[in-house]
Amino acid sequence: MKVKIFYHHTDCGGVVYYADYLKFLEEARTEFLAKKGILIKELLKRGIQFVVSHQEIDYKSPAFYADTLTIDTHLGNVSAIRIDFDYEIRNQDGKIICMAKTAMACVDANFKPRAIPADIRKGLA
Amino acid sequence: MKVKIFYHHTDCGGVVYYADYLKFLEEARTEFLAKKGILIKELLKRGIQFVVSHQEIDYKSPAFYADTLTIDTHLGNVSAIRIDFDYEIRNQDGKIICMAKTAMACVDANFKPRAIPADIRKGLA
Amino acid sequence: MKVKIFYHHTDCGGVVYYADYLKFLEEARTEFLAKKGILIKELLKRGIQFVVSHQEIDYKSPAFYADTLTIDTHLGNVSAIRIDFDYEIRNQDGKIICMAKTAMACVDANFKPRAIPADIRKGLA
Amino acid sequence: MKVKIFYHHTDCGGVVYYADYLKFLEEARTEFLAKKGILIKELLKRGIQFVVSHQEIDYKSPAFYADTLTIDTHLGNVSAIRIDFDYEIRNQDGKIICMAKTAMACVDANFKPRAIPADIRKGLA
Repeated sequence: MKVKIFYHHTDCGGVVYYADYLKFLEEARTEFLAKKGILIKELLKRGIQFVVSHQEIDYKSPAFYADTLTIDTHLGNVSAIRIDFDYEIRNQDGKIICMAKTAMACVDANFKPRAIPADIRKGLA
Repeated sequence: MKVKIFYHHTDCGGVVYYADYLKFLEEARTEFLAKKGILIKELLKRGIQFVVSHQEIDYKSPAFYADTLTIDTHLGNVSAIRIDFDYEIRNQDGKIICMAKTAMACVDANFKPRAIPADIRKGLA
Repeated sequence: MKVKIFYHHTDCGGVVYYADYLKFLEEARTEFLAKKGILIKELLKRGIQFVVSHQEIDYKSPAFYADTLTIDTHLGNVSAIRIDFDYEIRNQDGKIICMAKTAMACVDANFKPRAIPADIRKGLA
Repeated sequence: MKVKIFYHHTDCGGVVYYADYLKFLEEARTEFLAKKGILIKELLKRGIQFVVSHQEIDYKSPAFYADTLTIDTHLGNVSAIRIDFDYEIRNQDGKIICMAKTAMACVDANFKPRAIPADIRKGLA
């Protein structure tokens, strides 16, 4: 997935603000799941949500206004209740900007932990 | 209401990003209503929401990192279905940063227009 | 220009947060200018910035998670120091979501008003 | 440090969006440093910046609209070039919402690593 950097992503240090990368990660894993036929909007109708339980990110190099970033998303471990993602974010010159990991926990509509449904586990496999 | 400016409010132009002022306005009118005993969270339990139907803002001077802004909120016209707010935002030197107006429409839980309940109109008077 | 709605654009009212539309407008006018060969990044190197001096927006209908919005950008009046833009934002069903106007003032690197350079005025014509 | 949760912090899942906590952490460590007499704005004038090199966060429980969160900030390890912070975020009932860690690297105005100045290390001690 690619994102173009606009003013709203940046801060007065002249670079992309550190929290904004987490928005890119949300977009990237959503697109990753969509390509496997897993639509978050459809899951919500079934009372299934994935919430972030852990996030880690290493900021390697700053990104700047008008950069085009590429986010590569990889599926990590999938357990009965949790999905892990890894990502690398690079700029238009191939320079690594960030390395990140997200753990997503499956919960019901009331945020209670629940098992990942079989069809989703199959879709991820 | 006062807000302190952090990196996350600013952009690479070195100033507060223009959309972030709308967050300050949300905070300011919420506090304004709370002082009159009108709690948005309690309204939601009754199926009552106020949504922004119109927003206007004049940007007079930029605000910078570490500035402390004061938002003065004034109630404008209150009709059967709509509440208007006016605001001035000033910095720590009393310099005017923005002038803004918001029109809020009363809607039900399904975003259908509805009359403002009598107790809220009384609370605002 | 199209934008897909993710969780980070929405609020607990279940709809796109009112300030986030201003981010879409920034993206839309940047793309509009880029198509005319006007690159904000290049202007900055020449010490030329455009800052928002006035913003107006009418919120007609809410937009929801997973919607795809189309932002149509039109050039309004161009004066010696100011550029006006108009926009309509529609969802995937063609429903109008917002109507907006932005006035951009030309300033130098120190935020002092200055005339719009001739080549930019020509590029916009 | 305390923060009140407004609509702009939340998403359509009905809870605080996961990236917004990083804004609270920025505010909390800025206030932590200010209490020790270390003002980021003054450092910038000396060509000294601290950038986030690593961020970790465990999301333990969701936070909701109108919650009041308390962020407790602790200084971790301080090396020649890096400052570590730990935080706990709790809600108004004392429930733990997040646990987080940030590593900040000292860089110059061009984002090149540099040693933390002696007066800052002394201020932190």
